[in-house]
Amino acid sequence: MKPTLEIFSQGEEIVCGQVADTNAAWLSQQAMQLGFLVTRHTAVGDKLDDLVGLLKEIAGRADCCLCTGGLGPTTDDLTAEAVAQAFGLPLAFDEVAFAQIQDFFSRRQRVMPDSNRKQALLPRGALRLDNALGTAPGFAVQAGRCWFAFMPGVPSEMRHLFAERILPTLNTRFSLAADRLITLKTVGIGESAIQELLRPITLPEEVAIGYRASLGEVQIKLLFPHAYPEQRLNQLTDAVAAPLGDKVFAVDDSSTGQCSDLVGVIDGLMRQRQLSLAVLETVSRGCLGSLCLTADWLLSSAYYQGVALQDTVCDGSETAQSLAADLLASGADCALVQLFTDNREGFADRGQATGISIYLLTPDASHLAQHRLSGPAANKQQQAALLSLDVLRRYLQGRLH
Amino acid sequence: MKPTLEIFSQGEEIVCGQVADTNAAWLSQQAMQLGFLVTRHTAVGDKLDDLVGLLKEIAGRADCCLCTGGLGPTTDDLTAEAVAQAFGLPLAFDEVAFAQIQDFFSRRQRVMPDSNRKQALLPRGALRLDNALGTAPGFAVQAGRCWFAFMPGVPSEMRHLFAERILPTLNTRFSLAADRLITLKTVGIGESAIQELLRPITLPEEVAIGYRASLGEVQIKLLFPHAYPEQRLNQLTDAVAAPLGDKVFAVDDSSTGQCSDLVGVIDGLMRQRQLSLAVLETVSRGCLGSLCLTADWLLSSAYYQGVALQDTVCDGSETAQSLAADLLASGADCALVQLFTDNREGFADRGQATGISIYLLTPDASHLAQHRLSGPAANKQQQAALLSLDVLRRYLQGRLH
Repeated sequence: MKPTLEIFSQGEEIVCGQVADTNAAWLSQQAMQLGFLVTRHTAVGDKLDDLVGLLKEIAGRADCCLCTGGLGPTTDDLTAEAVAQAFGLPLAFDEVAFAQIQDFFSRRQRVMPDSNRKQALLPRGALRLDNALGTAPGFAVQAGRCWFAFMPGVPSEMRHLFAERILPTLNTRFSLAADRLITLKTVGIGESAIQELLRPITLPEEVAIGYRASLGEVQIKLLFPHAYPEQRLNQLTDAVAAPLGDKVFAVDDSSTGQCSDLVGVIDGLMRQRQLSLAVLETVSRGCLGSLCLTADWLLSSAYYQGVALQDTVCDGSETAQSLAADLLASGADCALVQLFTDNREGFADRGQATGISIYLLTPDASHLAQHRLSGPAANKQQQAALLSLDVLRRYLQGRLH
Repeated sequence: MKPTLEIFSQGEEIVCGQVADTNAAWLSQQAMQLGFLVTRHTAVGDKLDDLVGLLKEIAGRADCCLCTGGLGPTTDDLTAEAVAQAFGLPLAFDEVAFAQIQDFFSRRQRVMPDSNRKQALLPRGALRLDNALGTAPGFAVQAGRCWFAFMPGVPSEMRHLFAERILPTLNTRFSLAADRLITLKTVGIGESAIQELLRPITLPEEVAIGYRASLGEVQIKLLFPHAYPEQRLNQLTDAVAAPLGDKVFAVDDSSTGQCSDLVGVIDGLMRQRQLSLAVLETVSRGCLGSLCLTADWLLSSAYYQGVALQDTVCDGSETAQSLAADLLASGADCALVQLFTDNREGFADRGQATGISIYLLTPDASHLAQHRLSGPAANKQQQAALLSLDVLRRYLQGRLH
């Protein structure tokens, strides 16, 4: 059985929605990859009773808890006080912590405000976690079945403390065996269509399958237990990939840390083959160029309203061919041209679908793809950009047909 | 006493940290502005027992709970089932919901997969919340002291359902006395520079000030208690706005629901004055065009690597003037041209700053702005787009000098 782990965040700015809790997401990823079962995230504000109650709950429920926030010098920073009350560990002045806080200010040639003295008060018996980047030391306590580690809420300090002080301790305190996550990334097919295609495949009970859809991209996640036989893992991955065919643009493996995206895959192939591209973004209006921000192989990307309004409401193949030929004449190796095929007027209406043509012209191939875009204008825009890039990806991978 | 509200998110992708829970942040802001006391956020994955336990906890603790996720068609979407178990409300097939789901697919000329049938199963007695944007209807139930509203996790669908179906109900079910939030939106100035400018201003204790910085934009938030005297509110808002001068592009007021963004402000002014624009996006590479997605007044937006590489590493004013004149010759009323002034090579390096010129040419004015961009390439790109748009905004508001 994997040890369970919860994430606990303290801060009015999180509970009131001024910031999204990116610390919780980051810590969860770290914990998962280490081999914990992450079961819950909780965020509360600066009410002492809420904090005390929550800490007691977690102490009876989880094996480990990673906590952020509430370690600052101000009166609404209540974490140490809450730990003291929840677990009967009165606050004690930590001379070493205090010396570090004084040192932090003197190195910056600033006078330490009196309020920072409070940060040297730690629950009795807590393990101090030295913080080289800020004034607040972290600390850890065992309470009930749960080992709690408390870190500052400032992301850079939190990450530093986690990597330097907490990670080594987790590996010695817990018996951890990491699962292996294989992620198949697809573009140009919806989540339910994927599920239909995968319905005939029966996975062994110990292998979990999950889906994640974002604009234009659906991921299929296969979670294998620790030390799952390599050959069987590859067979199952291939079995899931097969019905999806050329919709799969990358297969990532958590054991290598590899994390691909569509632009990254294309970037590698364009560099390898030393090709360049010019794009007419009639539909995605800058979104494709914007996604390829640092790509040297993207020679130009343009949007003209004239094209969009007058010439393109048609099946587009002839117009597209001539526009693409112009782009090649300007010196690019490949050209991508987007045209509206129908209902350009409905583009901004989230209730209406709009038809587009995507035409790719290269030295040795040409391809016309047609799609219907739906949803709000920004979704249609992003779909158009990703579907266009995907035509290029399939060409580069030799999978256009 | 304000009614208490919790946010509950379901999804392995949140608990495992694949995505930060931006839905929770957005919903908290909405709830706060309505007059709720937001007390807790909780996220759990797709374990049925966890879900059931958590729903029961919240039913005994909060007056209202806004829930997202777990309404999809797949087997790991368990919210309706968990509600059924937690509150003894067996699932029942909802004919109207099913007709809506079928309609969703037929309007898109797609066949409904069998798995979507599950989305028409709602807990007995639940209020159905029709979802015009996706296949999953939301629903609401009263359980214990708490009114629960369940929404899809896809942010666009969630926001739509909240605005159209839940907000009106909250206002009738709860006695809400909203605080009043005034938001000053600025561009082209950093958070610490703003804090320095505002240091001399003393606000009354009952008025809270907060800051929120995102790429290129900093917001100053003034929270006034319910029914705060109008005249005093205006005086204090003006006192905060004055030192910020023309950096403030909009002042939003939660009591009117007004929420401005830079593109929206420009859009209104361009339409009013019937002006058109052409842009050379040498630096922002499609990002500006992409932000102005549905703007008819944006006649063209283009990026050419040739321009970026050869002609532009200079102070840029002569090159920019000539490029802008070309754009006006093509028929636009206004032209915006971005050029690199130095360290184009360092653009992709997050540790290096890059200099840019932004040149605006209009029938009655011209203006050259110079900036240094820093951070990762995507940040530099977005800064370039927003700073360019802001030159146009200041021209349109008569604030160029």
